[in-house]
Amino acid sequence: MIYFNCDYNEGAHEKIMERLLQTNMEQTAGYGCDEYCEKAGKLILEKCRRADAAVHFLVGGTQTNATVIAAALRTHQGVLAAQTAHINAHETGAIEACGHKVLVLPSENGKLTAEQVEASYQAHIADDSFEHIVQPKMVYISQPTELGTLYTLKELTAISAVCRKYGLFLFVDGARLGYGLTAEGNDVTLPDLAELSDVFYIGGTKVGALFGEAVVITNPALQQDFRYVIKQHGGMLAKGRLLGIQFMTLFENDLYTEISRHANVLAEQIREVLSQKQVPFLVKSHTNQIFPILPDDVLAKLQEKYCYTWQERIDEKHSAVRFCTSWATKKAAVDELCGDLQELL
Amino acid sequence: MIYFNCDYNEGAHEKIMERLLQTNMEQTAGYGCDEYCEKAGKLILEKCRRADAAVHFLVGGTQTNATVIAAALRTHQGVLAAQTAHINAHETGAIEACGHKVLVLPSENGKLTAEQVEASYQAHIADDSFEHIVQPKMVYISQPTELGTLYTLKELTAISAVCRKYGLFLFVDGARLGYGLTAEGNDVTLPDLAELSDVFYIGGTKVGALFGEAVVITNPALQQDFRYVIKQHGGMLAKGRLLGIQFMTLFENDLYTEISRHANVLAEQIREVLSQKQVPFLVKSHTNQIFPILPDDVLAKLQEKYCYTWQERIDEKHSAVRFCTSWATKKAAVDELCGDLQELL
Amino acid sequence: MIYFNCDYNEGAHEKIMERLLQTNMEQTAGYGCDEYCEKAGKLILEKCRRADAAVHFLVGGTQTNATVIAAALRTHQGVLAAQTAHINAHETGAIEACGHKVLVLPSENGKLTAEQVEASYQAHIADDSFEHIVQPKMVYISQPTELGTLYTLKELTAISAVCRKYGLFLFVDGARLGYGLTAEGNDVTLPDLAELSDVFYIGGTKVGALFGEAVVITNPALQQDFRYVIKQHGGMLAKGRLLGIQFMTLFENDLYTEISRHANVLAEQIREVLSQKQVPFLVKSHTNQIFPILPDDVLAKLQEKYCYTWQERIDEKHSAVRFCTSWATKKAAVDELCGDLQELL
Amino acid sequence: MIYFNCDYNEGAHEKIMERLLQTNMEQTAGYGCDEYCEKAGKLILEKCRRADAAVHFLVGGTQTNATVIAAALRTHQGVLAAQTAHINAHETGAIEACGHKVLVLPSENGKLTAEQVEASYQAHIADDSFEHIVQPKMVYISQPTELGTLYTLKELTAISAVCRKYGLFLFVDGARLGYGLTAEGNDVTLPDLAELSDVFYIGGTKVGALFGEAVVITNPALQQDFRYVIKQHGGMLAKGRLLGIQFMTLFENDLYTEISRHANVLAEQIREVLSQKQVPFLVKSHTNQIFPILPDDVLAKLQEKYCYTWQERIDEKHSAVRFCTSWATKKAAVDELCGDLQELL
Repeated sequence: MIYFNCDYNEGAHEKIMERLLQTNMEQTAGYGCDEYCEKAGKLILEKCRRADAAVHFLVGGTQTNATVIAAALRTHQGVLAAQTAHINAHETGAIEACGHKVLVLPSENGKLTAEQVEASYQAHIADDSFEHIVQPKMVYISQPTELGTLYTLKELTAISAVCRKYGLFLFVDGARLGYGLTAEGNDVTLPDLAELSDVFYIGGTKVGALFGEAVVITNPALQQDFRYVIKQHGGMLAKGRLLGIQFMTLFENDLYTEISRHANVLAEQIREVLSQKQVPFLVKSHTNQIFPILPDDVLAKLQEKYCYTWQERIDEKHSAVRFCTSWATKKAAVDELCGDLQELL
Repeated sequence: MIYFNCDYNEGAHEKIMERLLQTNMEQTAGYGCDEYCEKAGKLILEKCRRADAAVHFLVGGTQTNATVIAAALRTHQGVLAAQTAHINAHETGAIEACGHKVLVLPSENGKLTAEQVEASYQAHIADDSFEHIVQPKMVYISQPTELGTLYTLKELTAISAVCRKYGLFLFVDGARLGYGLTAEGNDVTLPDLAELSDVFYIGGTKVGALFGEAVVITNPALQQDFRYVIKQHGGMLAKGRLLGIQFMTLFENDLYTEISRHANVLAEQIREVLSQKQVPFLVKSHTNQIFPILPDDVLAKLQEKYCYTWQERIDEKHSAVRFCTSWATKKAAVDELCGDLQELL
Repeated sequence: MIYFNCDYNEGAHEKIMERLLQTNMEQTAGYGCDEYCEKAGKLILEKCRRADAAVHFLVGGTQTNATVIAAALRTHQGVLAAQTAHINAHETGAIEACGHKVLVLPSENGKLTAEQVEASYQAHIADDSFEHIVQPKMVYISQPTELGTLYTLKELTAISAVCRKYGLFLFVDGARLGYGLTAEGNDVTLPDLAELSDVFYIGGTKVGALFGEAVVITNPALQQDFRYVIKQHGGMLAKGRLLGIQFMTLFENDLYTEISRHANVLAEQIREVLSQKQVPFLVKSHTNQIFPILPDDVLAKLQEKYCYTWQERIDEKHSAVRFCTSWATKKAAVDELCGDLQELL
Repeated sequence: MIYFNCDYNEGAHEKIMERLLQTNMEQTAGYGCDEYCEKAGKLILEKCRRADAAVHFLVGGTQTNATVIAAALRTHQGVLAAQTAHINAHETGAIEACGHKVLVLPSENGKLTAEQVEASYQAHIADDSFEHIVQPKMVYISQPTELGTLYTLKELTAISAVCRKYGLFLFVDGARLGYGLTAEGNDVTLPDLAELSDVFYIGGTKVGALFGEAVVITNPALQQDFRYVIKQHGGMLAKGRLLGIQFMTLFENDLYTEISRHANVLAEQIREVLSQKQVPFLVKSHTNQIFPILPDDVLAKLQEKYCYTWQERIDEKHSAVRFCTSWATKKAAVDELCGDLQELL
């Protein structure tokens, strides 16, 4: 079975494994107070061109989302998010378990618009019974989104402007950020994210690390006491240097960029075959997730050999599915898939 | 200014005030362990024909909703509710503050259907990543709904059947229950509610009392330790007998029914004038809330004299608004409003 | 049976009942936005000499404590309190249910000292693993305490100074404040409380009202959005004017002072009899709660006629118990109790 | 600098690193649904002789404690624990953040007694106002405790019996379990823990793994839906096989036992030197933590070369400190420390 179902089927990039081995018996301070974390943080801030920001390393995405949101919001405040947002759809209510409502906005392509955010805020303050309604205080977006789509710099700038106009925090979930930064047509850089958001994170779990997410907090109001909240949420890894070592490796010599681009190139190869065969897509994207709409009989054959994710039924004979490439995907596997697609379609 | 904006503009029915005065200097046990609460509970259970149920008295609706839901759900479970549900729209995230997600379903008329509930449950268990999604465990409905509509006995029976099939708790918010029980065309009785739901409440705040909601718990699994949860949620009134005295008065000699019907009769009088003038309604209902769609110029004139609630803009020249009658509404006020409507429309 | 077990056995002072009757059928805005609440708030602020403070009315003490603390603290912060504090001992974990740890300090007499607060704060910041420990951010004290004792102005000033030195909020639970303000030897006034604390409340439930607590927030940082938090915690009474009317009545013509003093005078009468008979006390106080240590055989006889609260076993033959007087206690009842005590001891 | 400050200064045992390397590019299912987790679970259940139990793998201790407790308790229930318990002292209120009060009992040596548990439960149900108090529903103990002490089989059996008598869950935190199982004088085995507790965990982070805790749930009532709660608490590792591979390696060929014993042997070597020199200990234990009370001048010299943890001040010239050995501690380092101690004392 060849896995295209997600981007976390393998362990870590070989250079990360090497470093973990090399440093394995070193004695360091715990809980992220070691030199590797410090160095990794500095590398990241250099890439972001924001020496004043804070960097913290957490283990996984759900944990990171809950920690950031719990640290930022007061009890009566909620977070605006697209219906498809990971925090709304796939975290077993982790945000609500921290006491905060996810204020859901409709979205076809996984993205929010500045207009939606503005309208939500305006509707809140215009309502006579506003104190009976959760106060929107944060906007959560993903770059790339859960559907693989990307905000353009213009769109992101517009959302950021609305957030600043109304005192809303802008939080960008970058669990797959590498695949966004290196996607064809992308014009949003790390310095842009640092400039336009209040807090964002750079995903490691899905981009070459065993695990790990690097949170970059640019808004000083959100920096205070953040480590307390990490600890409370069970996110303070005892051997924190494991995170530092991994992110140090990813951000030295641009490994993060290189391996992200690898996944996107392979995804484009699959997309091209599908496009040639006039296969429609649920959404258009240029990152490592591909959402073709395929005939059920083709899917039935594919699943004898390939593992992919079922997304949604389109009509009686067609379903949308998801294929993922990753830093670890082998060219040979993609060639084989493309060959089979050529034949079956 | 004549208030038609809600059903809690006045104090309490005069018979309740009399009883409160009569008993004012009596010494009783606190926290609802007095004889008045006991007697009121028995009266209610007789009306419900369920001697085995438990009755608890709380102060207000939001408090009651949060207490019932917190008592019933485990940390990873959520409650299915219509988009318009009070717990979703107007409780400042009280349910999420207890850690539980409100699982929102679309609704045009404030009601859920058995099909929606079944489909939600089925979608949950069919999802491969079901453990990453909040588990639906309770269904919350309002009778009447926030839009004044009513479930028929058939609809309620169907929802109850789905709930029992899948082990979901059915919770009925009866903040305005009196206006539902006595509405034209209603076929759902107190014994029906007791039979078909796991827990429901009978609203006092909006139906003749100074404040108070009587929770009836028929499912033994939800009865255990309920008073602990009331206390934790700040709902255990020190002078609990105030609730007992009020509900005792409401349920002796059918006062609750009598004053609820009064409100409905006056609401029908207003509805008839509007109907004669071909005024459309946002939703059709026969309870004490009326949602006409009126021209903005008419509304502008009405608001010089009457207080009502703005609901939503329909088009450039029309808005839907809400008029409420209540146990306390005076016939003369309704006559005056009807006269003015006749003239303005 | 004559009740001395608590200070909430009766309804409300007759002047309050009169006002509630007089205003019963008036139509007002809901949720505390009426003229009575406004007027009551102004009266209270005049007494506090703090026109800039905010006043909010809630229904009960547990609800008020949870609301204030939830509004003030971030997720990783806790509240320092004496072991005997109501929030620690008698609120079924309402504070923890909001996510906050009660940081318990030992106390013999129900009071904290400035030294304890300072030492707790210092211990926290001196600990290498401080981020693994709940951050103390608020100090909760009761005036009078749960044991009837009072902070002197000097003690309160010292605690306030430590709080301000370290950025801790000082929150004073005044559920029985009237009995403190009017106690023999008390030197703490309402303006002192307003000056020295960040937020405090004036209890109505135990001092003449049917129910109600008036929260005075002097710290602007705690004023923002407070009504959202009230609503979220189920504390926003629909017919909010009931609270306004009650507190307006209590603070016009110094009724609150007058009826509080009444209780203290009667408590002193009981204390004198006990003292003459050399009965020891669990704690010394001059408020409406009396904690004598009595022989079990005397207690056995007393309980045939009087209801009091058992406090703790002292030795094989003696127990400490609590007798309460209140605004509603009758002189005749106290005379009878004193006579019986004279005889039995 | 030689580190004796904790038992998580290094990475993982070399056999674990080998396995992680070998399996690194394998493709497996995510979230712990892979074959390695399955195999590791089976190995553990064999050791526990409980084929009916459930095994789940989480990343760290705080996360595990919060997840287990949140899964087990209803909103009004709390967990009895020693003052020194990790959940009380060093988790930044993670349990309270889930809404549950830690019900603290005094302890000199880190251990609870069956008598304390019974007395706490009895006091709760005997209290007239029991519904105003958090209901004790779980007992949390650590084996070894945070002070390195151990429950004997007799003590553990007694606690378990009290728990079963009153329907309390018994939860054993085994973050350092290996060092307990292999300690001199220990008579509690894995099958004993499985038999006597409702849920316990086997620590990997401090015993040879990069990270990881294996939760064994024997009580079926606690097994249901546990994975939902893991996910909600951010504990479901995307590449879950990392946990499975590590625990599989630890439990094949008794590696876990072997490396735990190594640490205890070295700890005994240090203890013997200290004992010969008549150094008193804060507590007596035979696990990998040593708590000597040393003169401040000796400590000053030691810290030029060794990193240890300061525990508490004993008098003007002495402090208690903690030295830890671990699976990774080198004999040479211990020899050096012992030599220096010989010389300095």
